[in-house]
Amino acid sequence: MGTYTITVLPGDGIGAEVTTQAIEVLKVIGERYGHTFTFHQALVGLAAIAAEGEPISDATIQLCQQSDAILLGAVGGIPQPDAKVKPEQALFRLRKGLQFFANLRPVRTQKALLDASTIKPEVLQGTDLLVVRELTGGLYYGHLEPSTPGKPSEIRQTANGIEAIDTLLYTEAEIERILRVAFDIAKGRHKKVTSVDKANVLSSSVLWRRVANRVAADYPDVTFEHLLVDACAMHLIRRPTSFDVIVTENLFGDILTDEASMLAGSMGMLPSASLGTRRTKHGIFGLYEPIHGSAPDIAGQDKANPIATILSAAMLLRYSLELSQEADAIETAVEQCINAGYRTEDLREEGKEVLGTKAMGQRIASAV
Amino acid sequence: MGTYTITVLPGDGIGAEVTTQAIEVLKVIGERYGHTFTFHQALVGLAAIAAEGEPISDATIQLCQQSDAILLGAVGGIPQPDAKVKPEQALFRLRKGLQFFANLRPVRTQKALLDASTIKPEVLQGTDLLVVRELTGGLYYGHLEPSTPGKPSEIRQTANGIEAIDTLLYTEAEIERILRVAFDIAKGRHKKVTSVDKANVLSSSVLWRRVANRVAADYPDVTFEHLLVDACAMHLIRRPTSFDVIVTENLFGDILTDEASMLAGSMGMLPSASLGTRRTKHGIFGLYEPIHGSAPDIAGQDKANPIATILSAAMLLRYSLELSQEADAIETAVEQCINAGYRTEDLREEGKEVLGTKAMGQRIASAV
Ligand SMILES: CC(C)[C@H](C(=O)O)[C@@H](O)C(=O)O
Ligand SMILES: CC(C)[C@H](C(=O)O)[C@@H](O)C(=O)O
Repeated sequence: MGTYTITVLPGDGIGAEVTTQAIEVLKVIGERYGHTFTFHQALVGLAAIAAEGEPISDATIQLCQQSDAILLGAVGGIPQPDAKVKPEQALFRLRKGLQFFANLRPVRTQKALLDASTIKPEVLQGTDLLVVRELTGGLYYGHLEPSTPGKPSEIRQTANGIEAIDTLLYTEAEIERILRVAFDIAKGRHKKVTSVDKANVLSSSVLWRRVANRVAADYPDVTFEHLLVDACAMHLIRRPTSFDVIVTENLFGDILTDEASMLAGSMGMLPSASLGTRRTKHGIFGLYEPIHGSAPDIAGQDKANPIATILSAAMLLRYSLELSQEADAIETAVEQCINAGYRTEDLREEGKEVLGTKAMGQRIASAV
Repeated sequence: MGTYTITVLPGDGIGAEVTTQAIEVLKVIGERYGHTFTFHQALVGLAAIAAEGEPISDATIQLCQQSDAILLGAVGGIPQPDAKVKPEQALFRLRKGLQFFANLRPVRTQKALLDASTIKPEVLQGTDLLVVRELTGGLYYGHLEPSTPGKPSEIRQTANGIEAIDTLLYTEAEIERILRVAFDIAKGRHKKVTSVDKANVLSSSVLWRRVANRVAADYPDVTFEHLLVDACAMHLIRRPTSFDVIVTENLFGDILTDEASMLAGSMGMLPSASLGTRRTKHGIFGLYEPIHGSAPDIAGQDKANPIATILSAAMLLRYSLELSQEADAIETAVEQCINAGYRTEDLREEGKEVLGTKAMGQRIASAV
């Protein structure tokens, strides 16, 4: 029976629609379990650029820091190669600024959705994996610190014409801490870690593999393997049930989890938690968001699947507020609605009832 | 009725087994169509490191340059993070040194293999796409030129500990030439180009997208779209038949084609051609190799699928020797053997006869 503050950053596109439904579900949880959730809303992304002149303001960052957790919708639109300010910088500032280096992306295949995927049910059956994506290093950062020597990211004029450069940098400490997160989580799961890299090409992956071998030695009860990222992209859809925890660097994690979304039937099903080491008085401080984007093509049409955001809210309860019973209640409610045959547009299936964003949110809220 | 010289680089693991079968098929083509193929063999990869002290010798590079085309098996073993010399450097020296910047990786789903994939037949049916992968730029290069300023790749000790750095660099000219290859090929196919990048994060992708827009304007009859690499990893297995030509940078192409191999049932089915601009007196000078690796786990066991290499030989005939009828003959022979129910280990299927590497090669050779 606690009191909690959550900063909600709806963002762009379908962001507002899906976060609204997650808030509705959290409110029901509050009533049912006697908690008080206070929601503070603020702008990020294109919405913030339009209203405040930047993708995320210092005031918003501060609001986030003062709350117990952050719930985010989606950020960005169609990439504009010539835009001076990118809406995605809001995400990078949040992730890097608040040191959310560990991005957890669970992928489970629900029995009732086995047929929704383009992958054969017999291949999917039993899939239950977790991608631990490093979120504050690698190619994503450089553009935030263009003046850091040796870590540039820019488009520049040279004697040989125009060229563009990005830098993939990892320190040993950054690699070690994400690997420890993966191994620690694996101990409470099926005790297997797959470390994904491109060690036959990249120096950063060579260092990654070395550190991984060293960390693995501290976890003798966890089965450990290396896999090249190209091979992983194949095996993920060839033998998904063979994975437990996959740990990898930022961009590889981005690509592999979008691919892995097909294991769950749709991207609209996949939540995520981004965590650091800071604790509030309730739990680990964290940022929660669906893995899908802002989907500008269907924004405002009540067509988006709110489940990824609702399940992100469940992760928020579990990790940042340490309300695991409440988190379970949401996950069970989602499963019940799916089992009862309710679907959203992205999961359209013959013989099943397709609901809009709002109606699906309400169904889940009342099933809680 | 020509005379042609082909340099064969079997390489490591299953490389020797699969190139041997491709040579057998080429010999039959020679007899049947009255051509003389002279094969020169040389070492690359671990084999060359062991025998000659380096992954590929200057003499071997010269041999390649003097031939009409190169047929390669596979290179490397299990990545050794602490090895001073990487066997893969043989590939990078060949690709970069001989300026094979355009890597063509066709992915077709054969009707008889529809059930071999983990993806549903109704999703696969009709898949016929071509990935045009940039092969001489990006994150792959840097380690070859560690002393080039602004383009480092290394593991180094700093005041803050050990760190590793890789550099993703593309010039406008490099981007433009690969895009033109993609558009030129698309004109002779289904007239659609999908350019894949990560323009919401990378400077190199922002430049890529700008150049792509400019090049696309020269091809008004070709449908053109951009797709983010993460979204592409999803859509490739969600709606594979919607793609015609996919063009992308080096590492994205590497990851996406391994994933795409599941569309063809197995990696063992996918050939590739790496081309530059140099012409021999017969055609475009090129390097041909299966997209699969050296598979050390099954090497020497007569279990590897030789089809990817045999189809690479067909591409060699088509592009470097301009013998398209002969290329067709090989492709038809492969299809016939598959249709007749012959499979290799990787495509094991109930009711089908599984052949070893040699037996499959011989079947195809006699079907030519
Ligand atoms: C919007 C984009 C910058 C972001 C990323 O690449 O991290 C998204 O794809 C994600 O996975 O959260
Ligand atoms: C062996 C490896 C270096 C190579 C690459 O990454 O290019 C391989 O995966 C390929 O696709 O040809």
